[in-house]
Amino acid sequence: MALVLADTMLSRGLQAIQREIDNAFDVLLPVPEDGRKKLIQAIRHATIGGGKRIRPLLLITVAELYGVGRSSAVRAGCAIEAIHSYSLIHDDLPCMDDDDLRHGKPTVHKLYDEATAVLAGDALHAMAFELLASESTSGDPFVRSELVMCLSSASGHNGMAGGQMMDMESENETFDLHTITRLQQLKTGALLGAAVEMGAILGHAPAEARAQLKNYARDIGLAFQIVDDLLDHEGDAEKAGKALRKDADQGKQTFVSLLGPERAREQAQALSDQAIGHLSAYGSEAEMLRAVARFVVERDC
Amino acid sequence: MALVLADTMLSRGLQAIQREIDNAFDVLLPVPEDGRKKLIQAIRHATIGGGKRIRPLLLITVAELYGVGRSSAVRAGCAIEAIHSYSLIHDDLPCMDDDDLRHGKPTVHKLYDEATAVLAGDALHAMAFELLASESTSGDPFVRSELVMCLSSASGHNGMAGGQMMDMESENETFDLHTITRLQQLKTGALLGAAVEMGAILGHAPAEARAQLKNYARDIGLAFQIVDDLLDHEGDAEKAGKALRKDADQGKQTFVSLLGPERAREQAQALSDQAIGHLSAYGSEAEMLRAVARFVVERDC
Repeated sequence: MALVLADTMLSRGLQAIQREIDNAFDVLLPVPEDGRKKLIQAIRHATIGGGKRIRPLLLITVAELYGVGRSSAVRAGCAIEAIHSYSLIHDDLPCMDDDDLRHGKPTVHKLYDEATAVLAGDALHAMAFELLASESTSGDPFVRSELVMCLSSASGHNGMAGGQMMDMESENETFDLHTITRLQQLKTGALLGAAVEMGAILGHAPAEARAQLKNYARDIGLAFQIVDDLLDHEGDAEKAGKALRKDADQGKQTFVSLLGPERAREQAQALSDQAIGHLSAYGSEAEMLRAVARFVVERDC
Repeated sequence: MALVLADTMLSRGLQAIQREIDNAFDVLLPVPEDGRKKLIQAIRHATIGGGKRIRPLLLITVAELYGVGRSSAVRAGCAIEAIHSYSLIHDDLPCMDDDDLRHGKPTVHKLYDEATAVLAGDALHAMAFELLASESTSGDPFVRSELVMCLSSASGHNGMAGGQMMDMESENETFDLHTITRLQQLKTGALLGAAVEMGAILGHAPAEARAQLKNYARDIGLAFQIVDDLLDHEGDAEKAGKALRKDADQGKQTFVSLLGPERAREQAQALSDQAIGHLSAYGSEAEMLRAVARFVVERDC
């Protein structure tokens, strides 16, 4: 999957973070010569060399606004990427979305088997919290426990897992725009919000800044999902590295089916502009966050 | 499933803790009137009114040796039981052990569906860490982050998930006693060890006491698994509330297949005695832990 970005700053930032996250997972996951070998290989397949790394980019960028050291921020970035990866492995299972392809590579259950995919997801889920609770991520135990609280609540039944359940139920029910918005805020928004919030926690950002950053995250999260629906509607499966138009085939309501493609795109653009507005307290040091807000609506995969 | 216990102290202790854990999950898991309803119902089915609650009993008993308040200990007990429950839901899936019955009730994927079972396990996994990171469990952030570290490492690829993977691989390979012991230390021992260690963390137990308690947990963990294999070999499926003799049918090595039932039983008894030996620094206040060590080998389900 080629990632073509008009924005050079963002492109360079993502490339650097992709490299750092790949290296960190490589070090964290040596392949043991025992019965766990296949498990670790499956986890490596899912975590190394795939994905845009938008969540770690957000986390690390916010952390650096407040002077957090790079290695702490990268470890916390690995934790949120571990949660994101586990959710993709489980979502791709035959009993869920039944996908064969992810980031242009075979999904874990295709390359290995379903049981390995279930366990690889579970092990990554645990690893995220092990990373956050470690002194290498922060010497301050309050920061560590706040990071765990933020990520666990974004991942559980009041966050991503809850949103995924609502999404499954939406095949059988007709949802209105309000319900779809709520669903997407849980399913994808919670984790994007956690990325930004975890950066703020690591950086001991003041409460007012944290509130503005949360608003920024909420807006780009929603814009991100609307564009996902647009790309699913009109996009290129090869570029996306995954199967498309599955929602429509399953009769699910999306932002595009409810608003139509034109109003959906307008809405995404308005949210992106609004997200940038929430960064008005920052100068050029927040340029990367502005670039992310633009990228979210301009991306073609 | 009737739990008949000769030891009245243990029987009363377990009953009290079953009630408290059930009540705590009931309060933690109100059923929402939205698309997450089925998810929460599935989680409630898996967590309320089932299981012996051995892990919370160990955790709470150790915590109380060091004067920890009951409500803190019960919350941490819910966290470890949430991890135990999530692992049972996922282990029971068709792609794993494919079981229809658990604690005498239908398994989550039988009562609901596989996708709901995957998500219910995932949501419980996250909930465990959300509970531990909460100020209601401990006002001391260092304790909170130590609890998370302990439980996440016991749950992940170097703990339960790693042991489960080794167990799956054991269908294809011939394991010796050393490897089976290592496998079981990960698969069931890690979480029993975490139960004891989390009690010690909550209670700020000194390092030496913690080491002895860890030895105790290691011994009862192994004895527990040997007796599981014995019950699987000779037990009563109705009493157990689950299908039996699946390991032998799948050609897996167990303690019983490697040692024979007589030596296996002797070994379990020796481990139980040894576990009790590790409690020599305590007086009558550790009687419940001694009762658990006796129960582990005397139980018939």
